[in-house]
Amino acid sequence: MTVHSSVAHWLDQDQRGRSLPQGLYVSREAFEFDTQVMLKQVWLFACTVAHVKNPGDFYLFEMAKTSVIIVRGKDGAVRAFHNSCAHRGAKLCTEASGSNPRIMCPYHQWTYGLDGRLLAARNMPEGFDKADNGLREVNLANIGGLIFICLSDNPPPIEHVAADIAERVEIYNLDRCKVAVQDELVEHANWKLVMENNRECYHCDVNHPELMQSLSTSGFGKGLPGDEADAAQGARFEAFLDERQQAWREAGLYTHLVEFPEGSWHRVVRLPLANGAKSQTIDGQPASRLPICDHPGTEDSSLSVWTQPNSWHHFCHDHVVTFSLTPLDADRSLLRTSWLVHEDAVEGVDYDPDNLAAVWRATNAQDGSLSELNHAGIATDGYRPGVYSLEEKLVDAFKSFYVETARAALAGIEP
Amino acid sequence: MTVHSSVAHWLDQDQRGRSLPQGLYVSREAFEFDTQVMLKQVWLFACTVAHVKNPGDFYLFEMAKTSVIIVRGKDGAVRAFHNSCAHRGAKLCTEASGSNPRIMCPYHQWTYGLDGRLLAARNMPEGFDKADNGLREVNLANIGGLIFICLSDNPPPIEHVAADIAERVEIYNLDRCKVAVQDELVEHANWKLVMENNRECYHCDVNHPELMQSLSTSGFGKGLPGDEADAAQGARFEAFLDERQQAWREAGLYTHLVEFPEGSWHRVVRLPLANGAKSQTIDGQPASRLPICDHPGTEDSSLSVWTQPNSWHHFCHDHVVTFSLTPLDADRSLLRTSWLVHEDAVEGVDYDPDNLAAVWRATNAQDGSLSELNHAGIATDGYRPGVYSLEEKLVDAFKSFYVETARAALAGIEP
Amino acid sequence: MTVHSSVAHWLDQDQRGRSLPQGLYVSREAFEFDTQVMLKQVWLFACTVAHVKNPGDFYLFEMAKTSVIIVRGKDGAVRAFHNSCAHRGAKLCTEASGSNPRIMCPYHQWTYGLDGRLLAARNMPEGFDKADNGLREVNLANIGGLIFICLSDNPPPIEHVAADIAERVEIYNLDRCKVAVQDELVEHANWKLVMENNRECYHCDVNHPELMQSLSTSGFGKGLPGDEADAAQGARFEAFLDERQQAWREAGLYTHLVEFPEGSWHRVVRLPLANGAKSQTIDGQPASRLPICDHPGTEDSSLSVWTQPNSWHHFCHDHVVTFSLTPLDADRSLLRTSWLVHEDAVEGVDYDPDNLAAVWRATNAQDGSLSELNHAGIATDGYRPGVYSLEEKLVDAFKSFYVETARAALAGIEP
Repeated sequence: MTVHSSVAHWLDQDQRGRSLPQGLYVSREAFEFDTQVMLKQVWLFACTVAHVKNPGDFYLFEMAKTSVIIVRGKDGAVRAFHNSCAHRGAKLCTEASGSNPRIMCPYHQWTYGLDGRLLAARNMPEGFDKADNGLREVNLANIGGLIFICLSDNPPPIEHVAADIAERVEIYNLDRCKVAVQDELVEHANWKLVMENNRECYHCDVNHPELMQSLSTSGFGKGLPGDEADAAQGARFEAFLDERQQAWREAGLYTHLVEFPEGSWHRVVRLPLANGAKSQTIDGQPASRLPICDHPGTEDSSLSVWTQPNSWHHFCHDHVVTFSLTPLDADRSLLRTSWLVHEDAVEGVDYDPDNLAAVWRATNAQDGSLSELNHAGIATDGYRPGVYSLEEKLVDAFKSFYVETARAALAGIEP
Repeated sequence: MTVHSSVAHWLDQDQRGRSLPQGLYVSREAFEFDTQVMLKQVWLFACTVAHVKNPGDFYLFEMAKTSVIIVRGKDGAVRAFHNSCAHRGAKLCTEASGSNPRIMCPYHQWTYGLDGRLLAARNMPEGFDKADNGLREVNLANIGGLIFICLSDNPPPIEHVAADIAERVEIYNLDRCKVAVQDELVEHANWKLVMENNRECYHCDVNHPELMQSLSTSGFGKGLPGDEADAAQGARFEAFLDERQQAWREAGLYTHLVEFPEGSWHRVVRLPLANGAKSQTIDGQPASRLPICDHPGTEDSSLSVWTQPNSWHHFCHDHVVTFSLTPLDADRSLLRTSWLVHEDAVEGVDYDPDNLAAVWRATNAQDGSLSELNHAGIATDGYRPGVYSLEEKLVDAFKSFYVETARAALAGIEP
Repeated sequence: MTVHSSVAHWLDQDQRGRSLPQGLYVSREAFEFDTQVMLKQVWLFACTVAHVKNPGDFYLFEMAKTSVIIVRGKDGAVRAFHNSCAHRGAKLCTEASGSNPRIMCPYHQWTYGLDGRLLAARNMPEGFDKADNGLREVNLANIGGLIFICLSDNPPPIEHVAADIAERVEIYNLDRCKVAVQDELVEHANWKLVMENNRECYHCDVNHPELMQSLSTSGFGKGLPGDEADAAQGARFEAFLDERQQAWREAGLYTHLVEFPEGSWHRVVRLPLANGAKSQTIDGQPASRLPICDHPGTEDSSLSVWTQPNSWHHFCHDHVVTFSLTPLDADRSLLRTSWLVHEDAVEGVDYDPDNLAAVWRATNAQDGSLSELNHAGIATDGYRPGVYSLEEKLVDAFKSFYVETARAALAGIEP
């Protein structure tokens, strides 16, 4: 028996094609396991390069007991450090983001460079070596402007994922974007339920009127080849998609679906926007007058990226929306949504922040309520794992990723 | 050693005639045990038929991790179901009460009949059988209009209790009553302390000025035969009671005290109202102009029902007050008090809701404060189980019921 | 393995000259251990005699699950009792302080004398003996007017500490003082971090502008003999201190530093006020027109007393400031600061409460923020115990006292 024996027991009970056992969604044990073990074995999406645009800019990634400073150095490189002073442990950065020429502890003014090296510490005993007392670095990968971190000292390989994503998103030039709007939404639901909600549109028709204006639900398995649920609609959509993909190929754009290849954790696909929309906006018109992408043939489609276990992203011709999810507690999760536009776009002139954020802000609020209902019901004695519908295969994929990663992580720490 | 070994240890330490060991009142372990084990082995009072008066009406019974929908079917029968969708577990009903022709999940619109059968679920995989995916039913007993549920699949026998209570309360016609007022009071005290407070009037004289207008404290052992504490007052009261009981018998009313018969969990007694009152009101006058009971000889007495472990009820000629207690946390309990009047009584014409609720609303608030003081002191290191007074024999009865039920429940789950 | 095995493990990991392992600062296990075991083996500062000035006056000392009534009896003696009724455990005193001729339980009116004896309990069963049902007494020591309690039935010896402190503070006549101002500050930090913060002035220059007007930081090791950090400043201060100590000796005042003698837990030192100040006030002038000390030669110095593990005190010519720290939770602590002046001093005439409290009120707020930053950073995965500076030797002394007391306490309860 170990401290994680409950989690091991619940993982054993998991059934393919059904939701997880109750304990994995609502228990404190699972929360501790997820945040202290499972989520430290994987790459987590933290933010974009636009969040730390200039040298000295920092951005905090926080999750349960983790607090990491993501900071751009004087050399332009983005690095990550644990947010705890090497002296007596005080928190160094308390604001969610900001800019500083150096990192100075507010307690006793120990001072670090943007590269983490300790520069100054008064009145220390003989034998104290500044070189041994710098900030502790965290693994970081910059994938086409998307910043991922891994809290393990032995991160899993990322090269293949990085290549797949980077070569598809590079045309959106994240290096030339800025963060126009950022929302923080606390959802009273386990993080895995928020993720499951993101991985299906079985709930969309009734619950997301704003999103349905521009989102092609085919991205979630509706009407895609192989989906037998609505054959006639499927066939029509398939023909339409074939035609569009042909045009994209001719324009030099990637078209085939990358869907969580064996052993990997990313899904990338270009999809036509619905209803003739040019952007994921309420009226379907671009949210910003300055395009971020000058590649031909991208005006009426979006490139979507989903990663396990904590992010999703939609790249439109004129803006990018990017989502990072982190657990706060067994029943609370933080969803950070950032809307990026061209760095030269002027608020109030080239874009209206409320219009830019309207679709996903409404959708996030709706999904938050649904995830909370889901959590509340699972937390009761009445819950039993239920059967996924045909439209929830990506929920099953997320769940399987979780179960497999969790089992592997457990195997790694068991005797 | 088991997860309940602390509880077993504390149960072993219990002494007759004294309050419980500290851990049973204030610990998380005892709360988990009470709500996950002990309280699932017994019948719990949930509400009355007046709370689900018409087909489609539902009422939620919630306690710790339990959420149960009590709903009246099209056939008029009242049933209980776990409040969790069979699909992915979302909570089906979120309002405390309401009315719906069917039960539809807000997440993916799975739809159930009022009898719990699954009626609709879109796009499910081959082999999925709706008959296997209905709502999970909970045992329910309707005792003269009082609704009890049992969360165990093997509920204890209820026939004897049901008969005793039903034949005494039937003259109050709960089927023809409506809920006029309902209060919810969260008391920051363990549920067992709220129950103990309810089971004695040793604290009444100083703390309950409103209640003392109409309540005969003899119901709690004061002045009853066998009570030697105040012999002269006792003798006077005994003579008075004999005379009244003679009149009740002649009117065809039950008169003898049913007091937690061996192996049972109910107490029923008819008692004269104090000070010539006609109802449990501040001024002693009826709260509603429409009597609910047309049986002769009931105008100046009340029938009181107490059940272990979570309810008490007072039936007056013109109204009924009914109390349901449920644990929320180790140190928080929810008391729901409902005042019922004749279904034809018109608010503002036949009854004033504030006047109807005045006595017990004041009394509940006073008892809440006392229970909170009790909990706060027991939670300190200074607490030691103390000796019950002669006026606290029903507290001892409640405590013994708890200890015996808990021991039996533990024996059932231990190897 | 015992319930305290995590604490034992962390204590083993402690390194001299470094801050404690994470678990000892932030875990629930350590909080339970500290409040249920370690802090019960030591003497804790509770209040002064001025807080219970007259017979019947009471003052509550509360910490985690501990609630103790400190009360002055009719005989003038100060005693301490657990704040829980011997009947069913209700909390007897709920106000933080007050005055009563007797102690009566609000629940069932059991009544106790100021000496803890049960005076009245109605209607108890045969064999009940009031002599067995009094309040449970707590060990108490009055050291020159400073009230310490020990929650163990076998308190450690206190005679030596009592003598050292009492003979030095007696000239400040606490018996003739009154409480002019009392502040309660909840700091969101573990109590040990609040203590560590109090034990060094490495953080003072930047963070405490108000305090630096009158405080001689030499008291914390700056410039004191043996401190090589700033030799020139040290030598100047040493000469100045020699001259002052010579004058104090001639006036009959104790001058040598008592610094946590082997096996003991007190530090007492007379220090010159800085910048020519006459009191610890913003402008350096006395806060009260009525001196509390009539001993010659005390006008421009203060006597400071620090005790392990929860108090510190500054005695000025015109007032006393006294600090009592108690844990509320693993990450919350209560700091109670009391400012005492001469009992005849009239508010608004002889002293202005805001002026009296200004320096330490500001300092406490600043220290609270720093301790919260410290806790927040230690609570993250990035924390590792760091090296103390030369100016943090009293932090190391506090930490060592904690570790040694904790180890001894563990040894006492282990098989």
